[in-house]
Amino acid sequence: MQGAHAGQGAPAGAPAADGATGETAGESPMAVLAGRARKAARTLAQSSSSERDKALWAAASALRTASADILAANARDLAAYTGSEAFRDRLTLDAERVEAMARGLEAIADLPDPVGQVLDEWSRPNGLHIRRVATPVGVIGVIYESRPNVGADAAGLCIKSGNAVLLRGGSESVHSTRAIHAAIQAGLRVAGLPEDTVQIAPDADRRHVADMLAAAGLIDLIIPRGGRGLVERVQREARVPVLAHAEGLCHTYIHADADPAMARRIVLNAKMRRVGICGATETLLIDAAIAPGLLPQIVADLAESGCTFRADARAVGIVPDLPAATPKDFATEWLDAVLNVAVVDDVDEALDHIARYGSSHTEAIVTADEATAIRFMNGVSSAVVMWNASTQFCDGGEFGFGAEIGIATGRFHARGPVGVEQLTTFRYEVLGNGQIRA
Amino acid sequence: MQGAHAGQGAPAGAPAADGATGETAGESPMAVLAGRARKAARTLAQSSSSERDKALWAAASALRTASADILAANARDLAAYTGSEAFRDRLTLDAERVEAMARGLEAIADLPDPVGQVLDEWSRPNGLHIRRVATPVGVIGVIYESRPNVGADAAGLCIKSGNAVLLRGGSESVHSTRAIHAAIQAGLRVAGLPEDTVQIAPDADRRHVADMLAAAGLIDLIIPRGGRGLVERVQREARVPVLAHAEGLCHTYIHADADPAMARRIVLNAKMRRVGICGATETLLIDAAIAPGLLPQIVADLAESGCTFRADARAVGIVPDLPAATPKDFATEWLDAVLNVAVVDDVDEALDHIARYGSSHTEAIVTADEATAIRFMNGVSSAVVMWNASTQFCDGGEFGFGAEIGIATGRFHARGPVGVEQLTTFRYEVLGNGQIRA
Repeated sequence: MQGAHAGQGAPAGAPAADGATGETAGESPMAVLAGRARKAARTLAQSSSSERDKALWAAASALRTASADILAANARDLAAYTGSEAFRDRLTLDAERVEAMARGLEAIADLPDPVGQVLDEWSRPNGLHIRRVATPVGVIGVIYESRPNVGADAAGLCIKSGNAVLLRGGSESVHSTRAIHAAIQAGLRVAGLPEDTVQIAPDADRRHVADMLAAAGLIDLIIPRGGRGLVERVQREARVPVLAHAEGLCHTYIHADADPAMARRIVLNAKMRRVGICGATETLLIDAAIAPGLLPQIVADLAESGCTFRADARAVGIVPDLPAATPKDFATEWLDAVLNVAVVDDVDEALDHIARYGSSHTEAIVTADEATAIRFMNGVSSAVVMWNASTQFCDGGEFGFGAEIGIATGRFHARGPVGVEQLTTFRYEVLGNGQIRA
Repeated sequence: MQGAHAGQGAPAGAPAADGATGETAGESPMAVLAGRARKAARTLAQSSSSERDKALWAAASALRTASADILAANARDLAAYTGSEAFRDRLTLDAERVEAMARGLEAIADLPDPVGQVLDEWSRPNGLHIRRVATPVGVIGVIYESRPNVGADAAGLCIKSGNAVLLRGGSESVHSTRAIHAAIQAGLRVAGLPEDTVQIAPDADRRHVADMLAAAGLIDLIIPRGGRGLVERVQREARVPVLAHAEGLCHTYIHADADPAMARRIVLNAKMRRVGICGATETLLIDAAIAPGLLPQIVADLAESGCTFRADARAVGIVPDLPAATPKDFATEWLDAVLNVAVVDDVDEALDHIARYGSSHTEAIVTADEATAIRFMNGVSSAVVMWNASTQFCDGGEFGFGAEIGIATGRFHARGPVGVEQLTTFRYEVLGNGQIRA
């Protein structure tokens, strides 16, 4: 049993039994918190939708009541902070941002309860009725940076989905995180749910991250929310399943049968609406048949809005003043007003390019030809593929999921936007009336 | 990009782009095969259901044609084999077992195509239509022991679900595996699908296993099929997502409101029908209120069929000649005619016992009281929970999945029986008519 639990680095290892975990997970402070979270998770698994929603409403009101305390705590964090201005802005709370956190929790409470949803059901000839039912994951660990409000969002999504959560925020935001946490625990108390449902790292000790990543069998899922360095470290070191948002190297492919006006509109939006989000298009692929007429217009649209370019030789042949791209450019997620451009012969060359450089996040094709669209959609391994739409629609809100904790770029469990439904797993319930197996 | 791929030990790391994998995955023989498998997987992703079924039918007929060669190869393996008799039997093929392999492939061909199934769909106010579509995983690595027929089953399930597969069979069965593999490749040729869809380790070198476990970004999923040692090693070392069958420490709980005759029938079947399968009950939990009358009958039923016992003090108090259990007994998956017995006060004490000792595989409750059954089902973290049925129903065939490659005991992706549907993942397809994001 121990071994099976020690083997939890695998995403599908057996989840821990309480008995084993105490033994396997050592005595690190995070392991102790995780053990308490696991007990809380068992209570939560028996809780009602209305109890969990009540906790969210009460936490929202506690956040409003505690607004002054939260801002005072945040001021302490800011006073001690010495880093970049951009980072300082993300660290900074004000009355509006606290109110937004509270409204965020209320919006999560208003979502349908994902727990207990019957995902599938069928009956067997022997009379057994089998149903696949959505259940909480158990204990989720969220490791995030800078923005203290991520803690409130993550706690809200986990409470709604019946999970206990361990929060490890950035060391710069330790006082803000504590103040927010106090309000959320107040909400849990009002609803009669265990305070241990939401716990935070006791201090800014960096060791806590390593302890969480090693807490196989105690923590069922780790969600890293932050920069590439954090996500890659978590993916490399975790011995616990990880729901990670790696990279969004998204492509928009304009097929020869695309409507030119639609293609111009989509590319401009996909690249420039917000250049810093993971769903922003980083590379434009355009068919040689349509490029001579259309590419100059697209370049003009984008240049006018402040975009620069890295173009392959064929694109430079059409728009001579485009800077030449290196292969490294095509592998770069710019998150900036920079667009890679490559001219391709057809959908298969576009798929080859995406297979070579893509990150399996989101790709789009613009075409009026359905057969080509289907070939494109079947040919990418990406979590999300758009047909005649902007890649910037890859977003939990735009998908109708309500709040999201991030975009998952892996092959399994959740892919794409991660909302409350994606924070559940399932079990099979087999309902009989005494059946035995022949 | 490299980093993100190197981080693939995480279950949710971004899958590899072809370009990157060549760089990240080194030059091991298995990595070279996996690279070829990835190319084959891209062709398979564009293949039709009828092409894949044609390959399965042709492979079945090629197995029959090659029956003599396969048995000759198997004879070479047996001649070189020096291990236990039980293992030798599992290694041994005969004409019937070859025919069973062929029929198995035909049965898989007859299953509905899981690829392209629309799992969910909805429309957004802006007119975008979003659908969640089942897609192949990509490249699956199967590491198995002894039984050469596992290779044929695994290849069949992967072909049906549109996946390429790398097979690493036991070193004792290397000649048998080669002969079976030749027949499957013949089937792929007949259907015009890439031979690289199904590949085997070039020889018995044990290094190939480590190379597969390290092939992050090249192999999308590893499935270990074998003993606890293999599974635990894979879970410990894999830097690739793993779909593992850990342990089946299954419990049957008899609640005070159980029908005694039903309870006796279910316990006898759950323990003794086949003692060596993972769905066999290892521990009986019985309410104190019903135990004095019922436990002696259950013990008599089981003893008569050759079962022995490990009982807690309260059970010994009711049936004095029961041997006393140690805590270690309750944590032991016997896979034998041995039953742990514990008397509990109520469903919550039963849930505590299962949380402490269980492996989250399959549990059963026998009760006529629905509220108690619901509390029990919500209170276990197990992949499968039975109400008034034998735990031995945890089986792909009994679930109606057709062939299965194993039972998954993890928290994510597939839980319980793993058939062709469980060898798919999904993507979101977002269908627009030019939408851009505001």
